[in-house]
Amino acid sequence: MNPAEEDIAHATDGEIGLVSPQDFRFPNPFEFESGQSIPEFTLRYESYGRLNAARDNVVLVAHALTGDHHCAGVHSLHDRKPGWWNSLIGPGKPIDTNRFFVLCANCIGGCQGSTGPKSINPATGQPYNLSFPFVTIRDMVRTQKILLDSLEISSLYAVIGGSMGGMQVLQWAIEYPEFVRRIIPMATTWRQNAMAIAFDEVGRQAIMQDPEWDQGNYEEDQGPNVGLAIARMMAHITYLSDQSMDRKFGRKRPEGKGKRYSFDIEFEVESYLRYQAQSFINRFDANTYLYFTRALGYFDLAAAYGSLDEAFKSIQCKALSIGFTSDWLFPPEQNREIVLAMLRQGVEASYTELGLDLGHDSFLIDSEELFSLVRNFLDN
Amino acid sequence: MNPAEEDIAHATDGEIGLVSPQDFRFPNPFEFESGQSIPEFTLRYESYGRLNAARDNVVLVAHALTGDHHCAGVHSLHDRKPGWWNSLIGPGKPIDTNRFFVLCANCIGGCQGSTGPKSINPATGQPYNLSFPFVTIRDMVRTQKILLDSLEISSLYAVIGGSMGGMQVLQWAIEYPEFVRRIIPMATTWRQNAMAIAFDEVGRQAIMQDPEWDQGNYEEDQGPNVGLAIARMMAHITYLSDQSMDRKFGRKRPEGKGKRYSFDIEFEVESYLRYQAQSFINRFDANTYLYFTRALGYFDLAAAYGSLDEAFKSIQCKALSIGFTSDWLFPPEQNREIVLAMLRQGVEASYTELGLDLGHDSFLIDSEELFSLVRNFLDN
Repeated sequence: MNPAEEDIAHATDGEIGLVSPQDFRFPNPFEFESGQSIPEFTLRYESYGRLNAARDNVVLVAHALTGDHHCAGVHSLHDRKPGWWNSLIGPGKPIDTNRFFVLCANCIGGCQGSTGPKSINPATGQPYNLSFPFVTIRDMVRTQKILLDSLEISSLYAVIGGSMGGMQVLQWAIEYPEFVRRIIPMATTWRQNAMAIAFDEVGRQAIMQDPEWDQGNYEEDQGPNVGLAIARMMAHITYLSDQSMDRKFGRKRPEGKGKRYSFDIEFEVESYLRYQAQSFINRFDANTYLYFTRALGYFDLAAAYGSLDEAFKSIQCKALSIGFTSDWLFPPEQNREIVLAMLRQGVEASYTELGLDLGHDSFLIDSEELFSLVRNFLDN
Repeated sequence: MNPAEEDIAHATDGEIGLVSPQDFRFPNPFEFESGQSIPEFTLRYESYGRLNAARDNVVLVAHALTGDHHCAGVHSLHDRKPGWWNSLIGPGKPIDTNRFFVLCANCIGGCQGSTGPKSINPATGQPYNLSFPFVTIRDMVRTQKILLDSLEISSLYAVIGGSMGGMQVLQWAIEYPEFVRRIIPMATTWRQNAMAIAFDEVGRQAIMQDPEWDQGNYEEDQGPNVGLAIARMMAHITYLSDQSMDRKFGRKRPEGKGKRYSFDIEFEVESYLRYQAQSFINRFDANTYLYFTRALGYFDLAAAYGSLDEAFKSIQCKALSIGFTSDWLFPPEQNREIVLAMLRQGVEASYTELGLDLGHDSFLIDSEELFSLVRNFLDN
């Protein structure tokens, strides 16, 4: 077997296997949309598959609020879970790593290796904390472009992402029209409505009112864990749907723990939320949560460009927008509106709505329907 | 003008005017559904209109989670707001106090005058706090029955209420079938689903994780204000709809305060939530919030009686169930299911769904459509 055959043999097993994140360091100042600057930044990213000679077979994946660059493969053979979009990305999978060079970077302002509020400010030797610049979706995209430029990538075959990732996808198409050939924004919106802004505000208040937050100056291994847990529990409910929660938990009591008349856990869904919160505070930084939810709230393509039609005027790529019937955080009509405005601007865009009942998080689940949509749009 | 004429003259102006709450003290032990007891209790209530000679023209109003007995009229001529259902109750209004004797009591476990966690336990001279018995919807109804018995009321012309009030309405019809002639449950459910349980759990965690909660032993003028505010802000969103929030707030910035790039108030909806939270912590007790949300979670007519059909088997009254299209906390189908099960049991029941877009709180708004439904059902 020659090396090429070996590759194919490995590829057909359908899994990416072991991956290692890379750090890209940009040694120059970067000015954020707010006008604030930092003297340098790092983006941590992962890539799967191989860059072709033309350096144009790149699929960029944009992560959501609490996601990160680790979207496929495993970091160690002991990992219990692969990256968050592992079902979608891999050899022979809808985003086929036999064909595409897939890249995903932790967003600027993040807490998984990219420069963010807990990073050391070289000017002071101290963490930025709240002196970190406010981050916008456009800042996320512009820093990713700097990373792609450093890799001498000539164009993006596609950009794909859900929720906050979907916002980045839209921003990519607007900001770099000649660089992007296809976009797949999912479960997203062109501007957060009042309800989404409100939920994010409650989460931020839970964090900022926690005495351990200390104006953002907590030590890295400490912090407003209570507030962050409350924020996560609440937000997690908004990512689901009542149907899926009823199917999964209903009114079930934890086995052997069904003691009634207490303020301890009485229902399985309560236990699930606490577990989710605990695992979240172990992996996520509270200040990043503040910055990223603000980025979500600031995102408003109509306000930024005069109107949604104006925003999409320059777009040259093809677009497939996917909404989910049960998503009540960024409901289907907000995804549909994106495509309607694109069509008015002559963009080759289509809208699909999937009846998956998992709510906003539907874009993250294993669905053959979703997989074939992505596969066909990329094949086309 | 004789006194009767004077009454009528006053009545036709359509407003109840000044009212004073009454305290009913039950001097004997009361055993809760949990098996726990208290040696005596007080219910604070208000009444409007006059009890007829047969003592059977009574409309009982049941309040929701954060409501109370003050549902109509004003306590002082300086009051800026009348009781919470003042538009519905009064002379010539849908619940016509020229005809009905309308009564509403603060629920047992409450914090507006009825015995609850912050009341003094006569056995210890100290507040009950968490030694207060767990409260169920059935306990609320049974204590209200004791109050009505003390007033020698012979039957209820109708029981009406929304949300937690609607649960009490259903429980009344089941528990005292020969006593109740008409019920109007609105925006309610026969059992909370997993999502509603989950939101309540986040609210309780926000309160109980606040160090000021101190296992419920805070002083009356102190307490877990931060946690209670977070719980309220979150819950308040669940009482609205995205359409109504978009119409009222959208992405508006507070006038003259539109500073961008901060974690202070940036959007009007954020300011609104903080205002709501502040006014809530000024009037509501955190322990009562814990007890009442548990009462909501425990409510499950199917589990309590074997099935929903079994629960409704004994009902003798007429029922009008009202759901609201935009209510996603206790959505229309949960209200429809109530009527379907009643119809299967031969109950004279009908279901109406109103297209008001204010979400769960639609039952509290001024709507001629809602008013005429209530008026006609009571006239019938």
